[in-house]
Amino acid sequence: MPDLGARTWVVPGGHIPFPSTGPEPEFTGFDQLCVLNATDTEADLELTVYYEDTDPVGPYRLRVGARRVRHVRVNDLIDPEAVRLDRPYGCVLRSGVPVVVQFLRQDTRLPGVLALATGLAYPA
Amino acid sequence: MPDLGARTWVVPGGHIPFPSTGPEPEFTGFDQLCVLNATDTEADLELTVYYEDTDPVGPYRLRVGARRVRHVRVNDLIDPEAVRLDRPYGCVLRSGVPVVVQFLRQDTRLPGVLALATGLAYPA
Amino acid sequence: MPDLGARTWVVPGGHIPFPSTGPEPEFTGFDQLCVLNATDTEADLELTVYYEDTDPVGPYRLRVGARRVRHVRVNDLIDPEAVRLDRPYGCVLRSGVPVVVQFLRQDTRLPGVLALATGLAYPA
Amino acid sequence: MPDLGARTWVVPGGHIPFPSTGPEPEFTGFDQLCVLNATDTEADLELTVYYEDTDPVGPYRLRVGARRVRHVRVNDLIDPEAVRLDRPYGCVLRSGVPVVVQFLRQDTRLPGVLALATGLAYPA
Repeated sequence: MPDLGARTWVVPGGHIPFPSTGPEPEFTGFDQLCVLNATDTEADLELTVYYEDTDPVGPYRLRVGARRVRHVRVNDLIDPEAVRLDRPYGCVLRSGVPVVVQFLRQDTRLPGVLALATGLAYPA
Repeated sequence: MPDLGARTWVVPGGHIPFPSTGPEPEFTGFDQLCVLNATDTEADLELTVYYEDTDPVGPYRLRVGARRVRHVRVNDLIDPEAVRLDRPYGCVLRSGVPVVVQFLRQDTRLPGVLALATGLAYPA
Repeated sequence: MPDLGARTWVVPGGHIPFPSTGPEPEFTGFDQLCVLNATDTEADLELTVYYEDTDPVGPYRLRVGARRVRHVRVNDLIDPEAVRLDRPYGCVLRSGVPVVVQFLRQDTRLPGVLALATGLAYPA
Repeated sequence: MPDLGARTWVVPGGHIPFPSTGPEPEFTGFDQLCVLNATDTEADLELTVYYEDTDPVGPYRLRVGARRVRHVRVNDLIDPEAVRLDRPYGCVLRSGVPVVVQFLRQDTRLPGVLALATGLAYPA
């Protein structure tokens, strides 16, 4: 299969919803990066997180197997430091092999309410 | 009419919501692939589904008539096997003629609540 | 100002929500095409609507002034015939000058519930 | 780091939700432009706002620091004049250096209801 996608992806509009309501983990609020690696090679990804008022943080390292998808909750990224909750951020994802990246937010700040938003990341 | 679109499309962020609430089928939760074939030739599509922890499954075969649109609920795909509910997946759609593909999710896991999210697939 | 955009745009995932709940017109469910014409020339647009089980219908004619935006509810298109409610469709928009097109859905089928979804159309 | 993005971005589908319900500012309805500047140079942005029935307004000037993200609520733009509430608009964003732009809407017009919609702006 020919390689599908790009090696650099950008998401400008990150903001992990906080607090959450409803049962965890299925209704925990999150920002998610959904990565599809259709190649025959494992993808080593480096994520850099940008903020409004401080220097970028990273790299966060992620691995996506060959011919696998991986959906990563940004809330779960803790090394080199936890991504900050309820705060504007953006991120740049770099991969050694071509991948495709989609952004998804689940917002459950209001009790009994669920809001979703999604879109492709920008292939740079 | 000149051909519109691309022959390969990628959706990284699939996840069929489960369970559903409300009347079926209009409020059943779903992931949907919306395909527009503006050409004068019937489009034979092959869908491959990628998971986090197992090999890709496919091809799922779909047909979209010439000068037709088709909205396929991923939940309804059962051959070669049902796409798994409530589990991260992604997919690659290949078409013999150029088409355009949009992704749509309807989430009704919470009673009396409706969440929608949409975006173009990635033309690879 | 240099021309911005493209002359052909595609939306595969149309489906006007029906019925609606809540005060009209602000909470009426709709699919919307949002067109920005940054050029110095009025844009004459032709919209063709594609269905799952019948031939395409059109052209619907729309005009967007020079240096103007226009947000058109697909529900309001009636000539040559009303776009069908609660039925899958897609559309192709052609413009004499470059424009940019965004798709937006507002769904109020459930009482007291509002769902939104948006994304760029595909520039073909 | 190589420059990421484009110098001109277009959002056709603006419409600031009005009125809002719920605690301010976190549940105030808004349209938001999320800008990521991964370059080593501060980005000076000029925003032009387009309406349906009047000439464009602008430029609105924004600054995004080097290696910073900035999420701007369109509701907060007041110079040269406040962007109008509850009214269709679109906008063109120009930057001296490459940036990436995402659009996000939060709608809280219905009490106890939250709707989100997002998507990339169009890189022109």
